[in-house]
Amino acid sequence: MTFTLYESHARVGDLAQLLSTTHRFFLLRLTPGEALHTHKGVVLHDDLIGRPWGAQVYSHLGAPFYLLRPSLADLLKETRRNTQIMFPKDIGFVLVSLSIGPGQTVLEAGTGSGALTTALAFAVGAEGRVVSYERRPEMQRLARRNLRRVGLEDRVTFKLRDIAAGFDEREVDALFLDVPNPEDYIPQAREALKTGGFFGSLVPTTNQVSRLVAALQAHHFAFIDICEVLLRYYKAVPERLRPTDRMVAHTGYLIFARPVLPAPPPENKPSSEGEA
Amino acid sequence: MTFTLYESHARVGDLAQLLSTTHRFFLLRLTPGEALHTHKGVVLHDDLIGRPWGAQVYSHLGAPFYLLRPSLADLLKETRRNTQIMFPKDIGFVLVSLSIGPGQTVLEAGTGSGALTTALAFAVGAEGRVVSYERRPEMQRLARRNLRRVGLEDRVTFKLRDIAAGFDEREVDALFLDVPNPEDYIPQAREALKTGGFFGSLVPTTNQVSRLVAALQAHHFAFIDICEVLLRYYKAVPERLRPTDRMVAHTGYLIFARPVLPAPPPENKPSSEGEA
Amino acid sequence: MTFTLYESHARVGDLAQLLSTTHRFFLLRLTPGEALHTHKGVVLHDDLIGRPWGAQVYSHLGAPFYLLRPSLADLLKETRRNTQIMFPKDIGFVLVSLSIGPGQTVLEAGTGSGALTTALAFAVGAEGRVVSYERRPEMQRLARRNLRRVGLEDRVTFKLRDIAAGFDEREVDALFLDVPNPEDYIPQAREALKTGGFFGSLVPTTNQVSRLVAALQAHHFAFIDICEVLLRYYKAVPERLRPTDRMVAHTGYLIFARPVLPAPPPENKPSSEGEA
Amino acid sequence: MTFTLYESHARVGDLAQLLSTTHRFFLLRLTPGEALHTHKGVVLHDDLIGRPWGAQVYSHLGAPFYLLRPSLADLLKETRRNTQIMFPKDIGFVLVSLSIGPGQTVLEAGTGSGALTTALAFAVGAEGRVVSYERRPEMQRLARRNLRRVGLEDRVTFKLRDIAAGFDEREVDALFLDVPNPEDYIPQAREALKTGGFFGSLVPTTNQVSRLVAALQAHHFAFIDICEVLLRYYKAVPERLRPTDRMVAHTGYLIFARPVLPAPPPENKPSSEGEA
Repeated sequence: MTFTLYESHARVGDLAQLLSTTHRFFLLRLTPGEALHTHKGVVLHDDLIGRPWGAQVYSHLGAPFYLLRPSLADLLKETRRNTQIMFPKDIGFVLVSLSIGPGQTVLEAGTGSGALTTALAFAVGAEGRVVSYERRPEMQRLARRNLRRVGLEDRVTFKLRDIAAGFDEREVDALFLDVPNPEDYIPQAREALKTGGFFGSLVPTTNQVSRLVAALQAHHFAFIDICEVLLRYYKAVPERLRPTDRMVAHTGYLIFARPVLPAPPPENKPSSEGEA
Repeated sequence: MTFTLYESHARVGDLAQLLSTTHRFFLLRLTPGEALHTHKGVVLHDDLIGRPWGAQVYSHLGAPFYLLRPSLADLLKETRRNTQIMFPKDIGFVLVSLSIGPGQTVLEAGTGSGALTTALAFAVGAEGRVVSYERRPEMQRLARRNLRRVGLEDRVTFKLRDIAAGFDEREVDALFLDVPNPEDYIPQAREALKTGGFFGSLVPTTNQVSRLVAALQAHHFAFIDICEVLLRYYKAVPERLRPTDRMVAHTGYLIFARPVLPAPPPENKPSSEGEA
Repeated sequence: MTFTLYESHARVGDLAQLLSTTHRFFLLRLTPGEALHTHKGVVLHDDLIGRPWGAQVYSHLGAPFYLLRPSLADLLKETRRNTQIMFPKDIGFVLVSLSIGPGQTVLEAGTGSGALTTALAFAVGAEGRVVSYERRPEMQRLARRNLRRVGLEDRVTFKLRDIAAGFDEREVDALFLDVPNPEDYIPQAREALKTGGFFGSLVPTTNQVSRLVAALQAHHFAFIDICEVLLRYYKAVPERLRPTDRMVAHTGYLIFARPVLPAPPPENKPSSEGEA
Repeated sequence: MTFTLYESHARVGDLAQLLSTTHRFFLLRLTPGEALHTHKGVVLHDDLIGRPWGAQVYSHLGAPFYLLRPSLADLLKETRRNTQIMFPKDIGFVLVSLSIGPGQTVLEAGTGSGALTTALAFAVGAEGRVVSYERRPEMQRLARRNLRRVGLEDRVTFKLRDIAAGFDEREVDALFLDVPNPEDYIPQAREALKTGGFFGSLVPTTNQVSRLVAALQAHHFAFIDICEVLLRYYKAVPERLRPTDRMVAHTGYLIFARPVLPAPPPENKPSSEGEA
């Protein structure tokens, strides 16, 4: 089942979500003859196939649901996980900062549960390629299942390998390290990336940030950016507009950098007095 | 000049950036015979063409620069503007929340300076399509120039039109309103969108949020999310890690919603006692 | 039992807290012959009286506790409540912004559960005075009990009254409105405050902020500040320093303003061309 | 000139502020015969003495000002400085967390420019005492001048001394370290504090936080809290309510802890199976 665009009506094979009025949702691949069993009753896939997207449907117990196509953010949130996964707020900023788009080749380690892998595979499109390294077989299996579920598996090359020995790839556009000790793999990352390519990483603690930034600086990475993305939701009550009471305070620190090729100034030019 | 992927070395026609050591950068389309005049001296395009990306180069005065391909975030920040433009932090979250990806058709109003237009055109790829409405001719001209500069103009259909009369398009995947009074165009948005499609908007004030959310609720939009994205940078000094002193405190509130088709429960089913 | 300063050892009549190793705490007034019953066993007050503050003590079941004097922040968090109470993060900024200090007279409405009342009474000291209006008898009773428990009741004059009819007091240094509709009581507030005095309020929604600010502007309040205080905690693990996963995203918006006396410029002076 | 409470009208010797319509302000001690020279003209003190607080006054050029008493927050912001000073947002939370109130004895190092010293002296009142250590003579002189200017000098004992040799005081209620390396003075702090007293510190970098927390844990400080206070302002425009564009993103991390006296469980009691 490969990833497809959506028509105006739900078709066999489409990845759908059923959203309850409390925003709880179910992800399902529409398959004739199958049934979704929820805590509020059963919904038959055959009752969904052919319906317009956005339609309100009812379980056999009369509980209301809406039939919707899942957004990329929904897919990310629904990634089945053994580990902490990256959040849409962070992934969105990573895509824009690493300039991930159709046709590119992107490297990632580790695969983890495959949330970022999903987003990368979505963004590079059918002509692009994601290569994802992971050394724990059970994590790779989980990620494969997650990617298969959303129809993006065929855009991903999964490799079961410790990256200490380096990456097979060279001249990739972008590389993201989502491992506990990214500072240990900077030479390997540099070797795989195009010079001038895009390096990114996410780590949860400040100590890791310090170690990673020091390693980047030691290996000719420049234009290092460190940031955190905070997302604050508001209650959708127009006459009493206010933020929600609680929020996610922290997922991780994002680090971006570019491998560069320093060179001495040409001999026949005067040396600069100041910094450019 | 259409948008292309990058090779390992800079080619004629590539969109490049020259970054000074103080992160100040210049955007240029590599053209034989041309020269870039900076405050730190002149750089000849011919000295850049054929160099590996990431190479350090020097102006005729000996000032150092790095030759880099611009990220999407860089292109957005560099959008020449007459108006407030959307920030990469917001755009990244919009792309993920509206599920903008290769091959899609996306509607936008108003075009403004074209920052979001650039990101949408980048994300939908060569097979996708962005239709962008604007009623001010001078803004549309500016946006066209901005899109042309980054090689993405051919993915965009620009329309010079007030959207009060509605959109020409139907069954679009996603629609984004970046206008001061989005609450006035919700029926028009609904008509153009697929039911179950993705609606998004950005407004700077809380009063606008209240009005927009009320209008969405009045026109059968559900699953309304309101949020703000905050981005905090840190100084890249490993042994003295700390946030920068100041930050952007506010760009706007993001509102997302889905047009749905409510329907009464079927008669032969029992009514639900609670909410699903 | 009035509020007293602490000696180095716990005395009869001191307000104490027993803190478990999980930061759970119990507030108690040390009284010979009494016993504190916790989920981890019994602690006799007689075993605490005479011990140095900071001492580790054990329940009859061997569970460890620390004997500590409560901070003002602890007292505020422990306020028994029927309503949302103000948080230490907001109260600290209110005290500094309204310049609440020893010897002052401060007005407050409504009393609510008495959290802010406690902080005001603490800060004005034995020579100061807090007058607190409340129209719900049961809330006033609760607040009285809370103030009595911490030994600050004698610094507070409680009034059971709707403030629509105005305050009895005049020329007070500072006035704080913690009511749902502060915009309805601005003339009353103005009448009670010294001109040039300090006005403050806290409201949870943006709609209330807009209404309150409009009312303040209509009644010659100037130097209006609107802000929100966000508090982010970190986990106390030195080698893995990071924020906690979740945080309080919103308590309310703080509004500060000063009642002023506009006057026309004197006739014998030239009019200013610009703003000062 | 000692600190006094304010009457309804400005008196000789009062500390006053003149606020322009752009929130720019001037601090002055009202003195017969003196004149304030502003960029908008001259204001005679004699024209201010006897006026009600809140009165609008005009310079000899006709520029409007308001005559106001400064808040504690204003005094803090106006501290003349050679160094980074603590912000009202942080100081307010420190006062509440360390429970600084009338009659207490508080220890501080280093004095710096005296901003926190000012707040502590304000809060402890005429019966309280602040002892402030500083090893740089020129900083102490500046702080003395700042405290004298606001009339709080007589509540402070200034000591010119490196705290490596320890504090003279014992059994103080609260101690605040505002030095670059607080981790080096934890034994000294412990010796001066009451057990169970309140310890606080502010450091700008995460590396300092890690070192300080490790030192506190090594010296029997418990209940360690690490936090940062963020303050976001809004524009006071009711019909277009929104945050300001930019904000202070970081001043420092606050660390609070309590020195405790661990003790082994009594022999005749059963040991606890779990944590209390």
